[in-house]
Amino acid sequence: MIKLTDRVRFVETDLMAVVHHTNYLRWFEMGRVEYLRACGVDLNDMRADGYLFPITDVSCKYRNSAYFDDEYEVRTTLTEFSRAKLVFSYEVVRLKDQIVLVTGSSQNVFTGPSGKIARIPEPYYSRISKLFEEEKGNTTK
Amino acid sequence: MIKLTDRVRFVETDLMAVVHHTNYLRWFEMGRVEYLRACGVDLNDMRADGYLFPITDVSCKYRNSAYFDDEYEVRTTLTEFSRAKLVFSYEVVRLKDQIVLVTGSSQNVFTGPSGKIARIPEPYYSRISKLFEEEKGNTTK
Amino acid sequence: MIKLTDRVRFVETDLMAVVHHTNYLRWFEMGRVEYLRACGVDLNDMRADGYLFPITDVSCKYRNSAYFDDEYEVRTTLTEFSRAKLVFSYEVVRLKDQIVLVTGSSQNVFTGPSGKIARIPEPYYSRISKLFEEEKGNTTK
Amino acid sequence: MIKLTDRVRFVETDLMAVVHHTNYLRWFEMGRVEYLRACGVDLNDMRADGYLFPITDVSCKYRNSAYFDDEYEVRTTLTEFSRAKLVFSYEVVRLKDQIVLVTGSSQNVFTGPSGKIARIPEPYYSRISKLFEEEKGNTTK
Repeated sequence: MIKLTDRVRFVETDLMAVVHHTNYLRWFEMGRVEYLRACGVDLNDMRADGYLFPITDVSCKYRNSAYFDDEYEVRTTLTEFSRAKLVFSYEVVRLKDQIVLVTGSSQNVFTGPSGKIARIPEPYYSRISKLFEEEKGNTTK
Repeated sequence: MIKLTDRVRFVETDLMAVVHHTNYLRWFEMGRVEYLRACGVDLNDMRADGYLFPITDVSCKYRNSAYFDDEYEVRTTLTEFSRAKLVFSYEVVRLKDQIVLVTGSSQNVFTGPSGKIARIPEPYYSRISKLFEEEKGNTTK
Repeated sequence: MIKLTDRVRFVETDLMAVVHHTNYLRWFEMGRVEYLRACGVDLNDMRADGYLFPITDVSCKYRNSAYFDDEYEVRTTLTEFSRAKLVFSYEVVRLKDQIVLVTGSSQNVFTGPSGKIARIPEPYYSRISKLFEEEKGNTTK
Repeated sequence: MIKLTDRVRFVETDLMAVVHHTNYLRWFEMGRVEYLRACGVDLNDMRADGYLFPITDVSCKYRNSAYFDDEYEVRTTLTEFSRAKLVFSYEVVRLKDQIVLVTGSSQNVFTGPSGKIARIPEPYYSRISKLFEEEKGNTTK
């Protein structure tokens, strides 16, 4: 699990005075970026090589509301990984009271220089695989 | 099914030159508002009476990419309805080629003046119920 | 002056229950797109030819608040135009009471296939010029 | 000058593969929040007391583009301050090369429990005043 901490921006709230529900999915995306950074994968490099990972599915369950200026932690876990796809799960927790705000998951596929679905090449595959296997080891120990 | 037509805004695109995946969920919200408008329910009135309908679950499946300036239609159907909750399903279609861009669903509950989950009062219940039953009739005919 | 009508989205509000101030600048952008559409210029075509028009300056004066579901009109005027730059002015008015919500302006330059500042080629120049001159004629008559 | 560091989010980019111009104004807002935090003013407390500070004017000059994942610093200075209004100026700099991305300014007024323009009460006035005077001292020394 890779952690990221941030703070609710004013613009992320809506007229119910809580974080607008779609913003949590934007935080999930930040979680994915941090996960790949922790693997040693820089998305700008991957993109320069012609590889992207568009999202194919997302879901989110809303449990408690976040408010302006709350500090939160996005906890990102890679739950499935192959050369063709990534499945992440997410938990967003408010730091001051450790309340779970939302949980969710997403599936991404890789696309290559042709813009079509592709198998992710080295060194990206090995780097992601390494952290994925390490984390799986930790969980099942 | 209630339809809403709009056009992709420049700001809704991302560096992959497609609509950012979280924006479709913002279009789903516009679909819910239109559905309730078609029922004769004005959300500003409902809110003045202390009733809101926060979202508890959302999911989206991405099928094809939308691009800047594409005209699209959001098709919103109320699939479950009670005094306590609403379940909507959505389909977003690009107008020029009738390609389905995304499909999804959401669940909302009602909250009352206390901020707690509440049963929706009249006249809101009857108004939503009327369109919901009419549409169900059309489908099962 | 080219007009565009739309309605305030729920997501565009913030915890003050009014439209977040940065969203008006997104509406200005929609106004620019409509202005160029009225000239017969499709930004996707222009972009396919390698021409973009990044913004260099923007300003906005906030006069009255817009609320969720308000219908508004964006009134866009091209006030300066050359092969190198565009200056637009904007006025956003709420339809039901004709109250001016915000006024503003922006300056854009053209960039060409090299990514550098460029002079806009035909047929784009003539098309924009035609509406610009027509409108100037109307104003000074 | 109060500094804030953050990183460009994927969702903040647009189809030109740069940060969408309106997002810098959202970063200015984060700068204002940080400035007031440095004064010991918590906006949630101020809001609970009925005081807000809506924006009346904003302007931004775009100098260089920011890209996905760039780390940037928002440098916020309070240039005018009275019980009735705040004028801030901003500079956003990319960290890796110290290039200035944008500069800008905003004016905010205070509104009180009635929703009307109001003079900001204690302890907020003194707290902001203290940092404002300190910084002015540093500049003119």
